[in-house]
Amino acid sequence: MGNEMTLDRVYKASYVLNDVVRTTNLLPAPKIKPGVELYLKTENLQVTGSFKVRGAYFKISQLSDEEKARGVVACSAGNHAQGVALGAKKNNIKAVICLPDGAPISKVEATRSYGAEICLVPGVYDDAYNKALQLRDEMGYTFIHPFNDPDVIAGQGTIGLELAKQIPNMDAVIVPIGGGGLIAGVAYTLKSLNPNIKIYGVQAAGAASMYESIRQNQILTLPSVKTIADGIAVKQPGDLTFDLISKYVDEIATVSDDEISAAILKVMEKHKLVAEGAGAVAVAAVMFDKFDLKGKKVVCLLSGGNIDVTILSRVISRGLMTSGRRSKFSIEVADKPGELSKVTSIIAKQGANIISSLHERSNGSSITGCNIRVTLETRDFDHVESIQNALQKAGYNIVKETNNA
Amino acid sequence: MGNEMTLDRVYKASYVLNDVVRTTNLLPAPKIKPGVELYLKTENLQVTGSFKVRGAYFKISQLSDEEKARGVVACSAGNHAQGVALGAKKNNIKAVICLPDGAPISKVEATRSYGAEICLVPGVYDDAYNKALQLRDEMGYTFIHPFNDPDVIAGQGTIGLELAKQIPNMDAVIVPIGGGGLIAGVAYTLKSLNPNIKIYGVQAAGAASMYESIRQNQILTLPSVKTIADGIAVKQPGDLTFDLISKYVDEIATVSDDEISAAILKVMEKHKLVAEGAGAVAVAAVMFDKFDLKGKKVVCLLSGGNIDVTILSRVISRGLMTSGRRSKFSIEVADKPGELSKVTSIIAKQGANIISSLHERSNGSSITGCNIRVTLETRDFDHVESIQNALQKAGYNIVKETNNA
Repeated sequence: MGNEMTLDRVYKASYVLNDVVRTTNLLPAPKIKPGVELYLKTENLQVTGSFKVRGAYFKISQLSDEEKARGVVACSAGNHAQGVALGAKKNNIKAVICLPDGAPISKVEATRSYGAEICLVPGVYDDAYNKALQLRDEMGYTFIHPFNDPDVIAGQGTIGLELAKQIPNMDAVIVPIGGGGLIAGVAYTLKSLNPNIKIYGVQAAGAASMYESIRQNQILTLPSVKTIADGIAVKQPGDLTFDLISKYVDEIATVSDDEISAAILKVMEKHKLVAEGAGAVAVAAVMFDKFDLKGKKVVCLLSGGNIDVTILSRVISRGLMTSGRRSKFSIEVADKPGELSKVTSIIAKQGANIISSLHERSNGSSITGCNIRVTLETRDFDHVESIQNALQKAGYNIVKETNNA
Repeated sequence: MGNEMTLDRVYKASYVLNDVVRTTNLLPAPKIKPGVELYLKTENLQVTGSFKVRGAYFKISQLSDEEKARGVVACSAGNHAQGVALGAKKNNIKAVICLPDGAPISKVEATRSYGAEICLVPGVYDDAYNKALQLRDEMGYTFIHPFNDPDVIAGQGTIGLELAKQIPNMDAVIVPIGGGGLIAGVAYTLKSLNPNIKIYGVQAAGAASMYESIRQNQILTLPSVKTIADGIAVKQPGDLTFDLISKYVDEIATVSDDEISAAILKVMEKHKLVAEGAGAVAVAAVMFDKFDLKGKKVVCLLSGGNIDVTILSRVISRGLMTSGRRSKFSIEVADKPGELSKVTSIIAKQGANIISSLHERSNGSSITGCNIRVTLETRDFDHVESIQNALQKAGYNIVKETNNA
């Protein structure tokens, strides 16, 4: 086949992937947004923890015997790396994955665990990318592009085929966008089957390269990207994906890192699923009304779940802060015995749990003063206010802090 | 039907529950334990976030019209409460849920969200339980027991029917035990279908009432229970469940809170699922070799996912500490300018990320000394050691801390 997308290419991918990937569950998610009949396509439960294995495996399976004998190379610190590694392993061929040497150790180990050879390159992503191209030229490896490849796009499109079976009467599907391979495949597939299904794309505001490119109708390159959704932090869209998205995607929106964090927390609390930042942007778009979905039957593509637990831990903290379930502030007290005891007893009576407290001589207004800095477990913002009111009524001054987790 | 368990009762429950509960996915979990072909039955993805809705709904559906007209009462701060609330709502009858007034606000709100009337009772679980019995007697409500009831047990047994279809050639199923309703239903059902399937039960070491009762072959009551797995913290087994477990369960083991925490973290990191403490005990038993499973095809029943995110956050911290991915220690330095800068530069060169540092005049050995207390993001225990070695080589003394999260 050449470079053109056809539905047959997607059907072929589906046939090839049948024994390799999971038909991921479509879960009803009634607790995300009242008034929207929402479903989650749980690609975070896919082998390797993300959809990427679909495109990578199919691409590798389509190489000639000669190409397979030489092996493949890819550049990625994340889900694509694991997809290529597993795809190569299952095809019994060699894979070299180039990563910048600052890549999180957990992702490096996960990639290695699928049997790939790791090439740590000093520098940033672009350096690793150039190294991968160099290896391609020197060693004859086939370079597996993370998104701008018709077989990769067709592989991701198999999610569209699954959805068409799982929920044939859906009104809309919301899909994360990084380089655009996932949405290009899903949009092409679903629109070809049923042009009435709306396809919406979501990018992280800190990496809105496709959003801007589509808006200005030309492929743009961002000087830098910065977002919690590292899986979709892409500086420049591909030309293939750009063309398909121009044709088949109805609308693109962006979401902030705070909105993404809130979505990760919501999916975890209400639906017991771990989503990575990139995986949660579609849910964030629903929660924060980026599209008109009232009364509609909508699928959010939860694209992956490979989030570092330390980041998850920070997301939880931040989410608790921004929803009033954790609160930090300082209380000015006189520097005399008994004050810490009085203050903590007031807090206890209000039913809040003290997570931590720091008691120190003040650098603030009064030379005879002290500050007690507390972190509390609270019910909501009203609860926080009633605690602070009780303290103020007892004569204490509250110094509020900015809500950093 | 009377009190006896029959397979027909379970088939009937399955028929009744068909439109109400989800046939939860059985997910391959190859990353939990090498050498064991493991699957997770994801009841954490069940409606209400736990299996409890199966038994509660079926029990309520079997009440007479007169009983339904009077309504039901239950006592629970957790999953049973939500199951009864949803079961009552779907049957269009009144439900009153008694909870101790210290119950986590998130669980109270979840129960209320399913439309139940909440009765907050001053005191502990036993007080709420007595209040529920009082309401039963005064108001004519039917008391819905969380486990010691043949319809409840039959409802939970429907998981066995699902497993028999999903993985007919399984060798063993591992099931959490609190009061014993879940394992009684699953064991009865599966052993009736195929006596060769091994059924293993797991309790939290801090609440091992069934474990002890079976060991001593009589129903025992623990004076107190204490475990992170609050969903299975039950002081006394039921007589029905005790009898069924005596007959149909092959072996029971216990797991510690640290083992449970490790399991929660593993399931979250490797399989992108949120499990509560009670939900993770079966996985903990596999991870820590409580049963002989080598080469076997094994199902772990992931019974629920309703864990408070603040507790989840603590579990993550603790898991990071106990696996060497987070480290806390103090460094003794001289009280002179430049020391903090030197120390942090050594740590940076070792590739560790400083999460927090506290620099204070020492209360320790030397009057001219200072302590720098750091919390670091590290790769593993080897990494921690190499950092501490580098600091010691530069002449600093390390004060290690106990590994508290």
